[in-house]
Formats: sequence, structure tokens, C-alpha cells
Amino acid sequence: MTPNDVATDVPPLNADRLWASLRAAAEIGAWRSPGVQRLALSDADRQMRDLYCRWCRDSGLQVRIDRVGNIFARRPGAGSLAPVMVGSHLDTQVAGGRYDGVLGVLAGLEIVRWLDDRGISTRHPIEVVSWTNEEGARFRPAMLGSAVFAGTLGLQAALDQRDDDGLRFADELERIGYAGDNGIPGAPPHAYFELHIEQSDVLHRRGIDVGIVTNAYPARGLEIRVLGRTAHAGATPMHLRRDALVGAAEMITAIEALATEGDGDGRATTTRLELWPDRTGIVPGEVTLTVDHRHTGEAELEQMARRLEQTVAQIAARRGLELTCEQLWEFGAGIAFDPGLAATARRCAGELGIETLAMPSAAGHDGYWLATIAPSLILFAPCVDGITHNEHEEIEFHRVLRAVNVLAASVLEVAGQ
Amino acid sequence: MTPNDVATDVPPLNADRLWASLRAAAEIGAWRSPGVQRLALSDADRQMRDLYCRWCRDSGLQVRIDRVGNIFARRPGAGSLAPVMVGSHLDTQVAGGRYDGVLGVLAGLEIVRWLDDRGISTRHPIEVVSWTNEEGARFRPAMLGSAVFAGTLGLQAALDQRDDDGLRFADELERIGYAGDNGIPGAPPHAYFELHIEQSDVLHRRGIDVGIVTNAYPARGLEIRVLGRTAHAGATPMHLRRDALVGAAEMITAIEALATEGDGDGRATTTRLELWPDRTGIVPGEVTLTVDHRHTGEAELEQMARRLEQTVAQIAARRGLELTCEQLWEFGAGIAFDPGLAATARRCAGELGIETLAMPSAAGHDGYWLATIAPSLILFAPCVDGITHNEHEEIEFHRVLRAVNVLAASVLEVAGQ
Repeated sequence: MTPNDVATDVPPLNADRLWASLRAAAEIGAWRSPGVQRLALSDADRQMRDLYCRWCRDSGLQVRIDRVGNIFARRPGAGSLAPVMVGSHLDTQVAGGRYDGVLGVLAGLEIVRWLDDRGISTRHPIEVVSWTNEEGARFRPAMLGSAVFAGTLGLQAALDQRDDDGLRFADELERIGYAGDNGIPGAPPHAYFELHIEQSDVLHRRGIDVGIVTNAYPARGLEIRVLGRTAHAGATPMHLRRDALVGAAEMITAIEALATEGDGDGRATTTRLELWPDRTGIVPGEVTLTVDHRHTGEAELEQMARRLEQTVAQIAARRGLELTCEQLWEFGAGIAFDPGLAATARRCAGELGIETLAMPSAAGHDGYWLATIAPSLILFAPCVDGITHNEHEEIEFHRVLRAVNVLAASVLEVAGQ
Repeated sequence: MTPNDVATDVPPLNADRLWASLRAAAEIGAWRSPGVQRLALSDADRQMRDLYCRWCRDSGLQVRIDRVGNIFARRPGAGSLAPVMVGSHLDTQVAGGRYDGVLGVLAGLEIVRWLDDRGISTRHPIEVVSWTNEEGARFRPAMLGSAVFAGTLGLQAALDQRDDDGLRFADELERIGYAGDNGIPGAPPHAYFELHIEQSDVLHRRGIDVGIVTNAYPARGLEIRVLGRTAHAGATPMHLRRDALVGAAEMITAIEALATEGDGDGRATTTRLELWPDRTGIVPGEVTLTVDHRHTGEAELEQMARRLEQTVAQIAARRGLELTCEQLWEFGAGIAFDPGLAATARRCAGELGIETLAMPSAAGHDGYWLATIAPSLILFAPCVDGITHNEHEEIEFHRVLRAVNVLAASVLEVAGQ
């Protein structure tokens, strides 16, 4: 994909410049080519933040950092009005791609560069934002920075989070030099926009370039602990065993099957597994699973959650295993995106001759938390075959560029000239 | 269980003394009461070795250590003949009990103490031996010390083994002060005896106090790597996933089922599982399983191994996963225990009025490697309900004492008066 493939049927954002900034970002934390591993508050994250802040300052933006490391780059407006925010995140998953998150931030930056090129000023300031630790790949919960900004998560709770190596969020933030002093929770913006790759294959498959997110899948995280009995992997006859891992394995396949029950639109994933003692020669005694389950609506998710608990309880009972289930997190329930902003985006797309599709989001995004404090809208751009959280995540840039232009037009309209 | 419960229908070893030494050993590395965690070359192992060596020296035994830390405590014989060795191991599993291994070593020590009490001298020296790292819970392979002694495993390969934290066997051996200079491989003994708890429930259930091990289950360790594709745990629709963990989970349950095919006497266990990336929000991309499989004979094991490879290949193919299988270890095939020693043990038991049962061993023991260089015999004592490699491992001491007496009588007969 090169900028030369860019379509000309959209307003002239500087496609070359946006492409070049995406390419430069993809170099930082490059890993398992063409992938990116840029975990929150890692050295690669610092390097990305440094480059991004330099770009922002070079564009004359005023850069401020808050106490959890969220970065706000402001282009002043005509008056002292609340800003129109546009952004996403710069961190990636362990096995990340080149567009998840960073596209939304750099699209925001391209919009203010484009306004500068055209000499367009706005009534509301425009603030490009990069939220800290969206992925949750290093510190829990996911969407940490936006949750603290929106007041959903307490500042101290965030600062005290530890990664799997026991390193504290606050210490790592300090270490990379992004412990700022901007107030938390933050002041609600006039409006919040976020452009993100869809991370499924609907837009790509249907040949539509812009998704307008209407609502969020409610999602829950569950920790399931399975307690069996350690035993000798050779001497102990099979009928005397209470093998926690075989029980957990049955649960994992049963949980996957729950996702496609009913209308088939659920998601159920065992993302983490901890095994004890995890030693040669010994039948596993304890397994802890982390299960992520989501559904189209709250009633559907509740139904799935009940089925899940019944299913794992039956497996445990049949195998003589003990079981505990604990909810770890919950998000997405009751999140509503702003119909006014959606109408604006649809109209802007229409004026540009770009087709849109109203669709839900099954992935969590920072926009979920912003939606609790301000009119917010998430736009999706297509990604190839829906592959994401994977080094082979890919886009067709000319299609994504149409979504960036719809974003630009919408931001401009809401910020006011 | 107290020594007062000890039966009086066996020759008078000092039951109180043996019981007291077992109780003292159970204090070292005490963990999850009444369990023991005494990993090879840990501080607890050093403490156990120090106490054991003191007991040996207090009994006038000459203590020598070889280059992998095996401990030989010799009671001289009348001439310069090869010794009759008797022993087992002092290390435990992560979730270990109070009798696995240590019973065989302390029974050996009790035998020489008993000979001293009675003023009985023997033609062959008697050497009580404690083998290093039998469990394989810390360093691979299991039965490391006896394998090096018998020349099956090279000295350097053993010294270079690393535990899961990357610590080197040689460094840890040096650290605990048990890097000796006795030659490796060792000189073959005149005969080798090992008493061990059965680790299954056959003797316990049938009310028989002594198992005479006739042959070994051949056993293999297999590493199975399952490669899928990381994806978003929410956004990625179920039909677009290649989830390595769900595939591995199907394999784990299928592998368990293989053990009870045919005559139902096989063993198949997934003991270890490594998951990548093991992060919230991401569909697992890679899983590595360690599978321990064993069967009554080589043909049966080979048949099981073929079925296992077919089964996991089918699951991988159906789920679009890649697969590699690599054999990690193998032991037990072709191991033969000495019929002459077995006859001696049977006769000694008969003279004591103690019933015996000829039986195979599904667990690996140091005696497997000794059997490759000298006439060897493993005796089993019952353990309650077959529970082992578990903190609740338990014995009925009066029954085990009968096995110790059969061992004592056998050792004395083979050592010669």
C-alpha cells in the first residue's frame, strides 16, 4: 500500500503526510514484522510519545499531560469554549498491529495540520488526545486512562495497578517521564470523536468505508478457579484423579460454544490460563482461567453469563472439582453514542459521497468512557479480513482515508467556523 | 498414626526410631500441612541433606558425595567387595508428601542402625544412597542423579540443566555445598534395593503390604506446540478465529480419554501448559503442552502414541491450527528387575509371614537406571488411597513397617553374613 493508491474522491487531507506518520509510528516497537509491540509505559511507548509530542509541538499545539499520562494537544479556538476532542491510543497489544489505536491519534493530528494548511480557525478548540493503557495488555483495566479522565476509575486505584512483573503503574509512568499534573478527572469536552479500525470484517467484506458506532456490546471479565487434586502423572490410575486442567479444558471448549448459541452473535474467549503446579510428573491441581464474554445486549449477556456459570458448575461437579467464579470487570452496558454526532457524521459522509454503516462495537474503546461525560461518537474504518490484535493487521489506506475525511468534516462542523 | 500402632509380627527393627526420623524429615520444607515442598537443590533440600548426613556420620557411616550430589553412606563389609546399595531420594514434588522418596532412604539408614544394634556384620558393604533430583520437579530430567551414576545421562548435560528461573544445576549444587568429587559414572554395586510407596491404591485396597516390582511401564514425554492466530477477544467474530487455546483444550480432553482406551491401563496426562500471549483482550495465539504418556508395555505405548498424534493432528486440522510434536524424554522401556532378588524378597517375606504381590511400576524410580548396571529390585509399600504427589499423601505405618522388614531381611541376605 502506498499513498499513490489514495482515492481522489475525498477532500484533500494530506494523505502522504498521514501515511508517513503511520509508517514512522510502525517503526517504534516493531516486532515480528510487520507487527508492533508497544506496551503501555514501556520504552517503546515512551519513544512513541516523544515522537508524537514533538510532532504536536512542531504543529504549534499546546501539549499537556495529566496524572495518568493522557496527552492532550490543543489547537486553540476563537473563544474559551470547551474543546472538541479527537483521539484514541498509542499503546498496542503484545501481538499488535500498525493501526489499532494509533490511526485515531494520528488522524486527529492530521486534521489539525490540515486546518493549519487551509488557515481554517474554529470556534471550539480542537484537542487531539492520546489515552494511556487502552489495551489493558500490561496494566488492568483496559481503557485505564480514559476511565480515570471520565471519573469512572479512581486516580489512586490506577496509579497502584501492577503489571505481571509487579511493576507499579505510577512508577513506570514516572520512569518514562509522562507523569503530568493536569487535573483528574478531566473537564468534559464539547464533543468527543474517535476513529478506530473496526477489528472485525463487516466493513471490509461489504465494501463500506465508514462504520458509525451506535452502541456497545456489554462485556464482562470472569475469573474461574478450578481446584482439583495433585497426583502422580504415571502412578495414579485415571479413575483416582481429579485433574484440574482436564476439567478446565472441558470448560474452555464449552465456553467457546456458548458464543454461538442463540443468534450466534456473542463472544466468549478464555484469554488467560494459570496452571499449578505446572511441573513434569504431576497431575495439575489448580487452574485459573480469565474469560471475556460479550453479547449484543444486556439481556443476551446476562443469559450467556447464566449459561456459562451453569455449564462450568456441571463440568466441575461431574469431575469432582471445586470451583469459584469472580467477576473481574464489566464495561459497555448502557453506553450510548450521541445521535446528533452520528447524524452529523452521516451527513458529512453523504456530502463526500461516502457510504456509511450503522453498527455496534464489540470491542471496548476509550470512547465508551467519554460517552459517559460528553456527546461522543466512534467511527470505524475497515481492516483487512478483520484481522487485529495480530502482527498481520492490515488496512487498505485509500478506504481508511475516506473515514479520516468523514472524521475531519465532522470535527470541523462540530467545532464550528 | 503413632509408633504405638506398630504391629509386632515382624522382626524388631526399631520402629520408634524410623518413625522419629520420618517425622523429623517431614518438618523440613513443611508446606500446606501436612505436605512437604523440598525441591532438589533448594534450601530445604540442603537442610534435609545436612540432617541426613549428620545421622549417617553419627551412625559411623562413611559419607561420600559425587559430582551431581548423590550421597553414599557406607557401612563397611568384611572384605573389599562391591556394596549392596539401598536407597531412594530426599527431594519432593512442588506439592509433595512426607513419604515419597524419603521413606526409601530412611529405611536404608534404619537397616544399618539395626545391624549395628544387633552387632551383625556383612560380607558386602552396605551403602545407603540418596539420589539427586529424582522428581524432576525442578531440573529435567527426572531421576537425574541415578541416570548420571548409571551412565545413561552425561555429567555435563546434567550440570548444565536449568530450572524454570534459569538457575543452573551446577551452580545450585555448589551453592548448597553438595558438589562432591566421587567419580561419575559410579561403580556398579553388587545389588541395588529401593523401597518406595506404591503411589497407586492396589496394595492399600487389597490389604497387601509388599509389592515386588516386576517391570516398568514404558513412559514418554511429548511437547506439543499449537499455533493459532492472535485476535481481538471481543471484536473478532468467532468464525474468524484460530484460537490456539481452545484447540489445545480439545487436545487435553482427547489425550486423557486415550489412557482408558483398550485395556484401560494406560496413563495420559497434560502436566504443563504455556500460553501466549496470556493477556486480557486477546485470543491466544500459541500454546505449548507437555504430555506424559505411559502404558503397560512397549507395543501398547506405541499404539497409544500413534493414536495421540493422529488425534491432535485431526483437532489441529479441523481448527486451522499448526502443530508440532517433539519427544522430550523416554524411560522404562526394556527395564527388567532381577528375578533372583525378587525371589529373595519373596522368600524373606514368606519367612516373616508377610504377603507380597508382583506388580508393575507406572511411576519412574531411580531403580530403573540402577537396573541397567546391576541386579536391582524395587519394593512397594502401600499408601493410603493411592494419593501421592499431593500434600495429603499418607501411609499406615504398621503396614509400611512390614515392607521395611522384608527389605531389611533381603538386604542382609544379599550382603551375606
